Formats: sequence, C-alpha cells, structure tokens
Amino acid sequence: MVSAVVMGAPQQPLEVRDFPRPELEPGAVLLRTLGSEVCGTDTHLWKGQLAGVPYPIIPGHVSVGVVAEVGAGAEARDVSGRSVEPGQVVTFLDVVGTCGRCWFCTVGHATTRCPQRRVYGVTLSADDGLLGGWSEHIHLGPGAHLIPLPDSLDWRAFLATGCGMPTALHAVTMAEIQFGDTVVVQGSGPVGLCAAVLAQLRGAGRVVVVGGPANRLATATAFGADDVFDIADTTEADRLEAVRELTGGRGADVTIEASGAPVAVPEGMRLTRDAGRYVVVGQYTNVGDATFNPHLDLNQKHLEIRGCWGSDVGHLHRSVQVLDRYARQFPWTELISREYGLPEAQQALEDVLAQRVVKALIVPRH
Amino acid sequence: MVSAVVMGAPQQPLEVRDFPRPELEPGAVLLRTLGSEVCGTDTHLWKGQLAGVPYPIIPGHVSVGVVAEVGAGAEARDVSGRSVEPGQVVTFLDVVGTCGRCWFCTVGHATTRCPQRRVYGVTLSADDGLLGGWSEHIHLGPGAHLIPLPDSLDWRAFLATGCGMPTALHAVTMAEIQFGDTVVVQGSGPVGLCAAVLAQLRGAGRVVVVGGPANRLATATAFGADDVFDIADTTEADRLEAVRELTGGRGADVTIEASGAPVAVPEGMRLTRDAGRYVVVGQYTNVGDATFNPHLDLNQKHLEIRGCWGSDVGHLHRSVQVLDRYARQFPWTELISREYGLPEAQQALEDVLAQRVVKALIVPRH
Amino acid sequence: MVSAVVMGAPQQPLEVRDFPRPELEPGAVLLRTLGSEVCGTDTHLWKGQLAGVPYPIIPGHVSVGVVAEVGAGAEARDVSGRSVEPGQVVTFLDVVGTCGRCWFCTVGHATTRCPQRRVYGVTLSADDGLLGGWSEHIHLGPGAHLIPLPDSLDWRAFLATGCGMPTALHAVTMAEIQFGDTVVVQGSGPVGLCAAVLAQLRGAGRVVVVGGPANRLATATAFGADDVFDIADTTEADRLEAVRELTGGRGADVTIEASGAPVAVPEGMRLTRDAGRYVVVGQYTNVGDATFNPHLDLNQKHLEIRGCWGSDVGHLHRSVQVLDRYARQFPWTELISREYGLPEAQQALEDVLAQRVVKALIVPRH
Amino acid sequence: MVSAVVMGAPQQPLEVRDFPRPELEPGAVLLRTLGSEVCGTDTHLWKGQLAGVPYPIIPGHVSVGVVAEVGAGAEARDVSGRSVEPGQVVTFLDVVGTCGRCWFCTVGHATTRCPQRRVYGVTLSADDGLLGGWSEHIHLGPGAHLIPLPDSLDWRAFLATGCGMPTALHAVTMAEIQFGDTVVVQGSGPVGLCAAVLAQLRGAGRVVVVGGPANRLATATAFGADDVFDIADTTEADRLEAVRELTGGRGADVTIEASGAPVAVPEGMRLTRDAGRYVVVGQYTNVGDATFNPHLDLNQKHLEIRGCWGSDVGHLHRSVQVLDRYARQFPWTELISREYGLPEAQQALEDVLAQRVVKALIVPRH
Repeated sequence: MVSAVVMGAPQQPLEVRDFPRPELEPGAVLLRTLGSEVCGTDTHLWKGQLAGVPYPIIPGHVSVGVVAEVGAGAEARDVSGRSVEPGQVVTFLDVVGTCGRCWFCTVGHATTRCPQRRVYGVTLSADDGLLGGWSEHIHLGPGAHLIPLPDSLDWRAFLATGCGMPTALHAVTMAEIQFGDTVVVQGSGPVGLCAAVLAQLRGAGRVVVVGGPANRLATATAFGADDVFDIADTTEADRLEAVRELTGGRGADVTIEASGAPVAVPEGMRLTRDAGRYVVVGQYTNVGDATFNPHLDLNQKHLEIRGCWGSDVGHLHRSVQVLDRYARQFPWTELISREYGLPEAQQALEDVLAQRVVKALIVPRH
Repeated sequence: MVSAVVMGAPQQPLEVRDFPRPELEPGAVLLRTLGSEVCGTDTHLWKGQLAGVPYPIIPGHVSVGVVAEVGAGAEARDVSGRSVEPGQVVTFLDVVGTCGRCWFCTVGHATTRCPQRRVYGVTLSADDGLLGGWSEHIHLGPGAHLIPLPDSLDWRAFLATGCGMPTALHAVTMAEIQFGDTVVVQGSGPVGLCAAVLAQLRGAGRVVVVGGPANRLATATAFGADDVFDIADTTEADRLEAVRELTGGRGADVTIEASGAPVAVPEGMRLTRDAGRYVVVGQYTNVGDATFNPHLDLNQKHLEIRGCWGSDVGHLHRSVQVLDRYARQFPWTELISREYGLPEAQQALEDVLAQRVVKALIVPRH
Repeated sequence: MVSAVVMGAPQQPLEVRDFPRPELEPGAVLLRTLGSEVCGTDTHLWKGQLAGVPYPIIPGHVSVGVVAEVGAGAEARDVSGRSVEPGQVVTFLDVVGTCGRCWFCTVGHATTRCPQRRVYGVTLSADDGLLGGWSEHIHLGPGAHLIPLPDSLDWRAFLATGCGMPTALHAVTMAEIQFGDTVVVQGSGPVGLCAAVLAQLRGAGRVVVVGGPANRLATATAFGADDVFDIADTTEADRLEAVRELTGGRGADVTIEASGAPVAVPEGMRLTRDAGRYVVVGQYTNVGDATFNPHLDLNQKHLEIRGCWGSDVGHLHRSVQVLDRYARQFPWTELISREYGLPEAQQALEDVLAQRVVKALIVPRH
Repeated sequence: MVSAVVMGAPQQPLEVRDFPRPELEPGAVLLRTLGSEVCGTDTHLWKGQLAGVPYPIIPGHVSVGVVAEVGAGAEARDVSGRSVEPGQVVTFLDVVGTCGRCWFCTVGHATTRCPQRRVYGVTLSADDGLLGGWSEHIHLGPGAHLIPLPDSLDWRAFLATGCGMPTALHAVTMAEIQFGDTVVVQGSGPVGLCAAVLAQLRGAGRVVVVGGPANRLATATAFGADDVFDIADTTEADRLEAVRELTGGRGADVTIEASGAPVAVPEGMRLTRDAGRYVVVGQYTNVGDATFNPHLDLNQKHLEIRGCWGSDVGHLHRSVQVLDRYARQFPWTELISREYGLPEAQQALEDVLAQRVVKALIVPRH
C-alpha cells in the first residue's frame, strides 16, 4: 500500500490515506517520492479559492522522485529523448494532457491556455489515483514530461524554489530585462524571490524587492536584492518616491508583480517608468478589482503590461539548468525553512499560510 | 503680412490675426500652407483639457504646404537626405526639438517620451511665430523633419487621414497583428478608421469596429470593416457575445482602443482572447478612472496590454508611403467631409466636436 | 477500389494503381479528393533530390477533399474543436506525427524541426496506404489536423496557391515587414508569388520580384508587384543598381529568397539595406555552395538573415483565413494554369518542371 | 601644451607630439585623461586595414578622464540630464556626430549606420585637435554623450573591458539568450571574453569558448567559461563533435562570433542547433570570403544569423551599470595585463598584435 495526504474538501483537515500500488500502463512511470513542495497554491486549494478542483485531491504539484518502475511494453523517455530507467532521480511537469491539437496549442501557440490541460495536485482527483506529490509514490501516465535532475544538482536545491522557479522564469522571460535595468519585484514569496534572483541572471543593474514580512525580505537581501521595502512600514507614496529616487526620477525599467494583491497592480504601473514593462504573474486567484487611470497609468506612459499564466515544459527544463549552473552563486537550499513528514502536512499548510516559513517541503519517510 | 487662426485661450472664440512674414534662419523653411487638418486634439485644446499648452497658439499640427522659401546660408534636407527646394509639396513631423541626448532618446530608445519635444499647433506659442498649420504660412526652423509628398499622392488624400494615420500606424505596428487575426477596433474617429484600414494591410482575417455615430460606422464599412457595432445600440455584454460568436468563443486576437473613453479599456481587455494583445492609443486626455479585475481580465488571460503614445518621423514617413501605395484600394479623400477657410475655423471646431464630420480640413484661400 | 498515382522510384514513370478502400480507425477520416496540387517538391521527389523518401509514394501534399467517412467510435475534430462531419469540404496539414514531447516540440518551440514529423505525399509510403493527395481518396489517421474551408472560399482558390501560401506566410511572418517597406522577392514560383502578395498584405510600400520566365513575372505584375526583373535579361549588378535606385541608394528593407538557387543568397544579402532583414525559404534541396564576404555582406551591414523551414498548423490555418478574406482583392484561381486527371500526372510533372505552368492541379474524375 | 600619441600613417612608428591646450566652445568639455584602452581596432588602424581614416590621428576610442574644464556659456550634461562638473570622473561615447535626422536615424532606427557618425581615435583627425584618448587631455565638443562612472566603479575596472564590453553587450543583446541555453563564443579576445561573461549574466546554462592562445583561454575559464577549446589543438570537426556531445546532439542554442576570421562564420553556422541563433560581431575588417551551403547550413537548419555593427549610447551606459553591479562577481581589473605611458604606445601596440596581453591600457603620467 501507498500512503498519501488527501485534501478531501476545502477547509477540512488533511488526512493520510492508504492507496493500492497502481498497475502501470506501458511506458508509465511510478516514482518513489523524495520530496514535494508546499506552495501558495496549496493554501488556495485548502481555502477553496480555485474553481474546478475535483476534491478529494492529493496535493503537491512540483515534486522529485526516484524512478521505481516503468510500465512494461514501452519505454519512458525524458524531454531530451533518452530512455528513463529505474533508479534515476527525476522531476516532471505538473501539467499533463495538453492536447497539441486545439487552436491554442496549434495556432495560438499559447499552450498554457489549452483547455485540456490538467495539473497534478490541483485538477486531478485522488479518486483516479496517485496524482499528487504529497504521497509515498506518484503515478505518471505515458507521455508525462520527465526531466532528470543532473547529478550535480541536489534534489533539495531543486525543490527549494519549487514551482516558484518555473513560474518566475516564465515571468522574467516575458519581462525582457535589458542589461543594467532597474527591476522592481512586488512580492517576496517564492515567485518573487526567484524573480529577484533571475533578474540578476539577466544582468539587471539594480533589483528592488517590495514585500514582507521581514524574514522574507532578509532572504531577498541574502539572495542579492539591492534594496528592499517592507509593505508594512511604507506607503505606496513612499515606495514611488524611493524608486524614483533610485532611477533618476524615471521609475523602474521593469516591474514584476508576484504579490497576489489587486491593489499592487495599479501601484506597479506607477512604479514603472514611461515606456517600461510590467509583468503581472501573481494574481493567481480572484480576490477583487483594482482601479487605475487609463490616461496617466497606461497610455501616456507608453506602458507595456503582460499577464503571465502557467508554465510549460520549457520553463521547467530551463529552471533545472539554471538551478544547476548557478548553484555556486545562490545557496538554494537555504530557502527551505522546514521539512514535514506526510502526517505533518496540515502543520506545513498552516505555517505557509502564516508566512512563518519561506519554503516548506513534504518529505515522506520511506 | 500672414493671416493665421489664433486660439487665445480655452473656450474663447478663435480669431484670425495678421503676423509679419518671418525672417528665416539658415536652412529654415517657410511653407505656403495648402491645408491643415482639424483633429480631436484641437477640440481638447479648445476645451482646455491638455496641460502645458502655451496659449495663445496657432492650432494645426498635421499640415501640407508648398516650400515658399529656404533660409539662405544652409540647405534644408528631407528625411532621405535630399535637398528641399522651393515649389516642392511637403509635410513635416509636428514634433520638434526631440533632443537626441537624453536618457529616453539614447538609452531608452523611446523618443516619444523625450522631455524636450514640442509640438506644432499644440505646445508652441503664437507669440513665437507661425508655429501651427491653420495659417497662410508655416515657419519651420532648421532641422525640422521634412517629408516630400510623392507626385502620385494628392495632398488632400494625405490630409484626409491627418494625424490619425501616423497615430494608428504606430498603434497597429505595436499590435503585431498576425495573418488571419480577428482585430477589434474600439472607436470610429480618424484614428479608429485608420486602424481598421491598416489592420487589413496587415492581413487581418476579420476587422470589427465598435463605435459611432452611424455615419462614421458607414465610413468604416466603406473602408472594409467586416462588422460594425454602434455603442448607442449595444451593451458591453452584447458586444462581448458578438465578438465571441465571431471567433469560435475565444475573443479577438488583437484589440485596438481608439475611443478615449476610460470604460472602453476594461471592455477591451474582455473582448480580447486569452494570450491576445490589446493596444491602448485613444486615452489622450485624463477623463477619469477605470476598474478591472487583475485575475480575470489580465493574469489568467495571459493578456498583453500596450499603451501607445505619440508618433515619430518613421511613423509619418511610413504613413506617406502607405497612403501613396494603397490609394488604388482605399479612396482616402472620401474621408474629408468639408473644407473650411481660416475665418471658418470656429465652425470647423464645432462640427468636429459635434461629430457632424469625419475629417475637416482648414484650407487657407491664398 | 481506389485509384491513385504512384511514384515508384525516382526518374521512373508515374503509374495509376488501385488500392483497397481502407478500414478506418476510430476518429480517422477518409476524404474524397477534390484536388491536390503539383508543387516543386514533387519535381524534386521525382528527380530523387530529397533524402529519406520511402518510395513508392503517392505524391500530393496539399489537397482538398470532401469528408466521405469518419471512423466509428470517436469524433474527428477540426483545429477549432468542432466535430467534422461527412460532406464537409476540408484541407489538412500535410505534416503528421509531430510528437509534442521532444526537446524541439517542448523546449525549443521549433516544431518544424521535430524528428518525428512525417509528411503526406513526401515521407509516407504508398505501402502504408492512401497517404498522398494524387488519389481518389485520402486516408487521414486519428489526430490529423483538419481545417474546414469556409463556404465563401472556392476549393480551387485554396489550391491555386497550394503549399506556396503557408510556406510564404511563414517566411513573410518571419520577415517582419514594416509599413512602407520596400520588399524584394527572389523567385517567381508559387512561393515567390505568394510572398509578393502577402507583402502587400503587410503594407509594403513597394514590392519587387526578381525571377522568370516572363509568364510568371506577368502573373507577379497582375498580382500587384510594382517592379519585376527577369533574371534572363539582367545581371546581379543590374539588379543591385536598380534596387538601390528605387530605395534612395539604401537597398531593400526586406528581401525574401524563394528561388532555390544558391547564388541567389549572397545576391540577396547585397540587395538588402544595412540593418535590413533577409529571409531564406527557397533553398529546399542541396544544389551546391555559395560564397560571400562576412565583413561586407553581413557584419558591417548589420544584416539579419533568417532561414525558414517548413510550416505548421497555424500557417495553414492562417492561409485559409487570408485566402478567404482577400479573395475580393486577389483572383487566386487565375494562378491555376491547368488541371490534370490522375492518368495525366506525368504530364503535369513535366509541365511544372519546364515552368510551362504557374500552378498545376491534379483533379481526380470521380 | 598637451602631449599626445600620434599615428601619422599606417605602418609608421607612433610619435608623441605636443598640442596647444584647446579653447573650449560653450558646453564643451576638456578631460584630463586617466586612461585609454588599446584595442584590436588600433592594430587594424596601424596596419591600414580600415577605410576612410584621416591620418594623422590620435588613437584611443574608449577612455576615462577627470573633467578639467567646461566651456563657459553653456552647461555640459550627462546622459541622465545632470550637469557635469569639473572633478567628475567620466567616460563618453566614442561615436559623435550621429545626425538624428537621416533616414537611418529617424526611420530605420539603426543609428549605428548613420553616415554622419564619426569616431574618436578612429575617424577624426589629429589636425582637428585632441580627438583621441592616447593623450594627456581629450577635447569633447558640445553634445558629446558623457557618462559619469559611479563612485563604486574603479576607472581601471571600466577600462579593463574597454570597447569590448559595449560591443559584446550589443551582440549578446541581439543574441536573445534564453535561460539555460548553451552558448558558444568564437574568439577569446576582449569582445569574446566579455560575451562569455555577459552570457552568464543572461542565465546561460553552459558557456563554451573557442579561441586561443592558452593565456586567453585561461582567462575565459577564470571568468566562468564552462568549457574552452583551443583552435590550435582542435579541428572544426573536433569542435562540432564536442559541442554536439555537450548538447544532446543538437548543437549550441546560441553562437556568438568574435574572432575576425572569415572561416569561423560557416563553422559557427554548423555549431548552432536547428532553429538556433548566430550573432556575427567580429568581422570588423575585410580579410576575405567564406563559403557555406545555403540548404544545409541555413535554410533546413531554420537558422537565424544577425550581423552586429557598432554600439550606441545605450550600450555604453548599460555597460557601466553592469560593470559596477557585477564587480563583486567578476574581477574586471585582472583582465589588464599591463599599463603603458604615452611614449610606450608603440610597445603596447606590438604587444596587442602579438597577443602577449589580454588588455593593455595607455595611462598618461601627468
């Protein structure tokens, strides 16, 4: 039997349940889970803030495991086309089922908007099997996008940034940072921290983080942020003035929103300079409206705003390369505040909700 | 003496005044005006809705004239480097003084945000001379950006689209329309009509115009719009439903706002499909705020929004080429509803304000 | 039984053979062929100039047919997700098997370089069934990318441009033509002619076609080319001088190679202005090397060169929209020189080889 | 009097001559030179390999000085609009005279192709004054683009990369490196070394340098290159095989040519993967032709090639920000092999020619 954490319904206590070990289809893969992250999405799931979630679910979308078994009759291949073998340490794209045939997949080239896509730990039901990472084993059907971790990359280092890294990598790619740019990041959770790191790996001239609480801002500084502003201590006017002072009166060349607060969006428009770029990646759930001035905040500013949704195989694959290559420079594992066993998952969720931790991992004790 | 229309102050009647014929600096140019457009900006100027206007001014920013004289001691050269000679029919960029030295000019490559730029007919004072187009003559200092009209291009055809064409050309360029895209244009004034034409010259698969009144929508149809919706007859919900029906439920690939109404902006976000693009060019004055939902209208949509401000030499130069090349296909002069002499300028302004005309020209009778 | 043209081996006479009507897999589609184009690729196939071709093959990659049957047990859906029903007139992407899983599909986002892709009429064998268009029926497996033709689009109009249109649409998209640009197209076959048309649907200010023979150049002129140069009558030096004269001495803003001659490539670099763009789409087979000067022809010119290979669902889908929308402007069917029955396929091939025709169609008589 | 090094004619020994201290125009600036780089261009100048050089010249294009005097009657302003005052340490763009009015400046937005541009130390004559950096003082006319060095940036650190940094920054910007990409740099001179550093500041997953001699490759490794290949020890076939092995058989995602050898260009095409990007920046002089296969090396590869010429104010400004911000990570001054006084300039030139040094500086002893 396989133990897994189940979220039966919003606001209900998590439970550990036993599942039968699955029969594998040809080319399917069973992972023995090394770890799985706890992410802000998991708190949204628990609060019931996401539509279309087929509770009960096994949470956990970004995970790492050892290949325990490959379903007989077909090979499993990684993204580079190599055969995947038992004993390998791999991660996988949490998104499955992207159809490759619909208008968004083939004409729009916007695969993160494919209506067929489903997400491990989010939109796949525990009734259908081990389809989430907070579990001793994870069942990956044929065609899952498998990415081996390089030997030089500690699996904890990979999980330390969790889905924050591919999400931020997508956002920072869309931000088109130029060498020497001043980049403001709104939000200091995992996505914001990763964006602040990645801005440095695009040659930003100055990286400013607006967020809180203090422990997260201290982490931002430790990971290279040049300036931090705590939203608890400063007003929007303070931040506007500070950013303008840092930029010769112009404002940020690029701003990246990773906060989740609607009010951050018009502030971000104003923090950005004329003809600058603003990427909004943090508005993952609907928590209300925002008001702005189309003339002053958008048109006269010649401002570009890009909403950024989801991530694809490329973002995850590139995240692995970046985490591996720049581990000499950034001590990823220091982002992990605490590891929790399966029975401690409820505690993990509450610690994340209370922002007592930067990154929490679920690590099944096998 | 030279007669010119003077707008002495907001809301005051226009007057025709006499000015001395100017002494030309070396390389300066004196134009004998053939015509000058009346544009929505002129109505904003008259209502006092623009900041930083040094009344009294001679209105008229996009104009055509015959070169009457070149200031002795230096050549005047056009944008292609050829000498400009008396007798040539030319237009010129209304924007002058862009410094080429500031951060926006040299590092930001956003010349339309250069703080030194001034605009003929808008931010140059009648106290400083013949610096607007509603005048028998126009005084262009050394270094003005001169663009000859090709012999094959009627000057009235050029003025028929006025500053709407370079403005729309800038916006449509930023819209990055792909072949076969469905393009929605919000607004049916000169910028919107030009955008609807230019969308066809980007290979759009369908062009939809949302605006009014009926005479402008009829013009849109005559110039190739596939569908028009009158805002007087339809609600936002009607328009959303109609556009979705035209696009297999997805929404417009590209939307271009050229209406000036703040409420059009959140509507435009919703009219656009997931991963589509929205260009906002019409919010030229501050007439209030707008409210939107950052999660639904921006982030989850993976929407790109681009504010578009001003136009540069390239936009005007390219407009001349397009007007000339595609005159066989689009009967530009039909956009001109009426021509007015200098003493009729007040009437022209009122006709534009009341939307009784599509395009009005000021044509001095020499 | 189903009659189809078979190319048994390079340089061997084509034959008409009978095939059994196939059993359809669930969701597969059998088309009754209305027509299929004869394209330059077919002449390359017959001359044996392409590697990896599994002779015998049924030629014909871009085709139109009526849905005769859908394999029971699953729906067939078009690119927009709608169910495809018997009686509909559809085309389909000739490329099948793109895997959606390899590095090029998922990380590189370069699906035309997916190693799994196969092409109807080119890299699929007649031993495996009705997998080419010069046949009374065409067998499309489950998952083929089906695109219905709009009622307003004559199937002959669609076939008149054949695979030239999606190929040119890909190239012209990569060319990033700006409004008013001077565009030179090298080559006046179907790809070149389509590129010359599409350049006008990007708002080019002038379209110049370099090619031959005279009948094709006459077609180019009829389809809107502003200038044509016959390579039989002019030298490279003549053409360089002529293009510079047309462009104020600068050269073309954009050049598109669609000729297939290696020597055209260095000439194209020189025809293009400094900081211009050059798209090479016509070098479909290896017919030798070319020599250029890296300093003068590339680096000092600040030239951008883009090789363009293959086309995807989006290019075909957009081609259908463009052909339909702009049929009022371009008389597509006039490109068809002659239609041939299946037994006349050899003659069709020879007429294309001799450039006696612009576009030849194979039209089975049912 | 002011001492300066004069290159009287190609292949003639350099001399130190005395010049009168210049009278300054209003807003002009006289710098007391702190240092000026010796660059490969200076060796080309001395060998007479560049066209249009108005010998005699004072060499030295990238230089740093202290503001000694500002011409009375007008302010001198830096790129950010601040007044420049005596005592400040500044650098300046070597390019002056870019007209801001021609087609390339205004329509083409390709200012590095403006025909009016002149370059300090290259295309300005010593007969016209102190217009090069190998001099005790440098005379900057009104309108020169001045960029102050931040207090935190040692002027030697700035000069250590010389014009290699803005040149490489331009090239790497055009290379559009994505996170995790494998980047191959051809050439290990200052431009190549800077490109290898900047690739890391774009988040490359692996940086490979192909060049020589051994001391430069050792520097490349010290500055973070993951792999180096000495062209003296390896063949093109060796390098192709090695790069393919490092990239799962695909080739480099991005290749940057900074070698100056024509034969490097076709090799670079082959080193790059299908649908990859190749930037050619090193072919600064005409030293012969190259041969390639348009089908295999360009079209079928779907390869993008970008020639990169010159640099502008933005590239220099951004270079200063990057050198300052990432000085904690890269020990710039270690690139300086030796400093030479004015009388030693001939020796400096010969050491650079013989590749005995990585970077040589001319440092006048005041």
